[in-house]
Amino acid sequence: MKIKTPKTDSTLKIYLEEKRTLVEKNLLRLLGPSGEYPLTLYQSMHYSLFAGGKRIRPILAIAASEAVGGMTEAVIPVAIAVEMIHTYSLIHDDLPAMDNDDIRRGKPANHRAFGEATAILAGDALLTTAFTLLADQSLWDNIPSDRVLQIIHEVGLGAGPCGMVGGQQLDLESEGKRISINAIEQMHIKKTGALIRASIRSGGIAGGATETQLLALTDYSERIGLAFQIADDILDVEGSVEETGKSTGKDVSQNKNTYPALIGLGESKLLEKRLVNEAIEAIEEFDEKADSLRRIAEYVVERTR
Amino acid sequence: MKIKTPKTDSTLKIYLEEKRTLVEKNLLRLLGPSGEYPLTLYQSMHYSLFAGGKRIRPILAIAASEAVGGMTEAVIPVAIAVEMIHTYSLIHDDLPAMDNDDIRRGKPANHRAFGEATAILAGDALLTTAFTLLADQSLWDNIPSDRVLQIIHEVGLGAGPCGMVGGQQLDLESEGKRISINAIEQMHIKKTGALIRASIRSGGIAGGATETQLLALTDYSERIGLAFQIADDILDVEGSVEETGKSTGKDVSQNKNTYPALIGLGESKLLEKRLVNEAIEAIEEFDEKADSLRRIAEYVVERTR
Repeated sequence: MKIKTPKTDSTLKIYLEEKRTLVEKNLLRLLGPSGEYPLTLYQSMHYSLFAGGKRIRPILAIAASEAVGGMTEAVIPVAIAVEMIHTYSLIHDDLPAMDNDDIRRGKPANHRAFGEATAILAGDALLTTAFTLLADQSLWDNIPSDRVLQIIHEVGLGAGPCGMVGGQQLDLESEGKRISINAIEQMHIKKTGALIRASIRSGGIAGGATETQLLALTDYSERIGLAFQIADDILDVEGSVEETGKSTGKDVSQNKNTYPALIGLGESKLLEKRLVNEAIEAIEEFDEKADSLRRIAEYVVERTR
Repeated sequence: MKIKTPKTDSTLKIYLEEKRTLVEKNLLRLLGPSGEYPLTLYQSMHYSLFAGGKRIRPILAIAASEAVGGMTEAVIPVAIAVEMIHTYSLIHDDLPAMDNDDIRRGKPANHRAFGEATAILAGDALLTTAFTLLADQSLWDNIPSDRVLQIIHEVGLGAGPCGMVGGQQLDLESEGKRISINAIEQMHIKKTGALIRASIRSGGIAGGATETQLLALTDYSERIGLAFQIADDILDVEGSVEETGKSTGKDVSQNKNTYPALIGLGESKLLEKRLVNEAIEAIEEFDEKADSLRRIAEYVVERTR
């Protein structure tokens, strides 16, 4: 079945807004009452969780579940967990010992607002809470425990040393060095790709994807993950602080290995476009329930047009 | 059934040595081949995992499982996970922004050996890997997935913001202030007690504990956890760098809220002894399979005699 990519911008806007609201409602609910935590730790976790993220990973998880016919509500634990993990990674990335970023999403970075020690602990706490929630059987609706374990394993692999954390280490080691386009791709596949892949695959698993569907979602996720990274690199060159919510031009000034720096801005945009097309092709066998995934892919390039 | 506490020091030594070897063999195996990680990240994780820890948490998990008739091998994922989580917490605790410790177990702290950025990431990676391994269905032998989820949830709660990470935050906030003995107890219950509690309870769950047995193990774990902390505080006053493997007298010089500082050395030792007796009483209904748990409790006070 060939499905043409739907071109309704406003449909996507409504979808993103609706899912973002759903994700944020559940983030707040599942973070639990502040009374159970040391207050400053709660405030620090809450501060970064609600600093205006686009919730793209949880929305991808939801869209992947919907694409295979899963219920939106059934994938909530995955959605919340991957957003908490993404948030923790931003907090730790911004630390002085790491990227030393003072601004995140237009606001002071967590360590600027709460101090380094609390920022480290807030990151640790978000990471731990993500797994705790995934393992909370009261949150899962009619999903067999085997499948929940598979999801936790998937998220762990995506976030861990062979995935996101490993990518961060590679990024660290490549700083100030010129590396090959292959090496930069490997770094991004781990640093940003692995968690996006895990979000989409976990959403698919929660939604009851068949093996074939899961393979297609995996292909989609790998293309879209890399396309996102290229878009971010492009925005760092072309965007303003207002648009991106962070210090721009920083990659260039820190001599970072970005796509525009290595293959030029024009080539970067072409590559991004090609990856998005491949992502959409990967799920061409899916019916109209996968339209949100298709629209999100289109949206990646829209941002950098 | 009243069981007298067994008094065989050498039996315990052999037990601890045997289990330590078992834990370390599996830690190395489950950390996986270095080829899958960025090399420095692997080295940094490996460095702190094999820096000479006593493996007391994994041994407690194993002993708790044995106490309820579980197989030693069945509890290996729990043992490895809690040791990885303990190790990550030490790496992050030692960071300049936290306790700023340069020595750990007689060797340079992770951040002194690998730099701050890699130390942060190695901690993150160990925490994530702990949960990834717990969710790996190929590692569990005949344990229902529901029970595995219960274990992951237990470990997550113990390690998270309502447990260990929360305790670390309370510790941070109490530095340089004199706090009440109740506040210090609350801090320790979270900072060191919660993960010990989770280790013992998870071991019990893996071993197939009944509800009654799990309650008894919980009582045992809470007493033993606090006794451990008091022992550590006493050792910081009385021990040498050689004995403790870390800078001693540091708690005093940093004006930390320790038991000896708040209630005196003599009172601290009495309290420690009382807690150990209560721990042994809590499991008095257990048969001789719980002798290792009894001996470990005795060993806590031995260290500080």
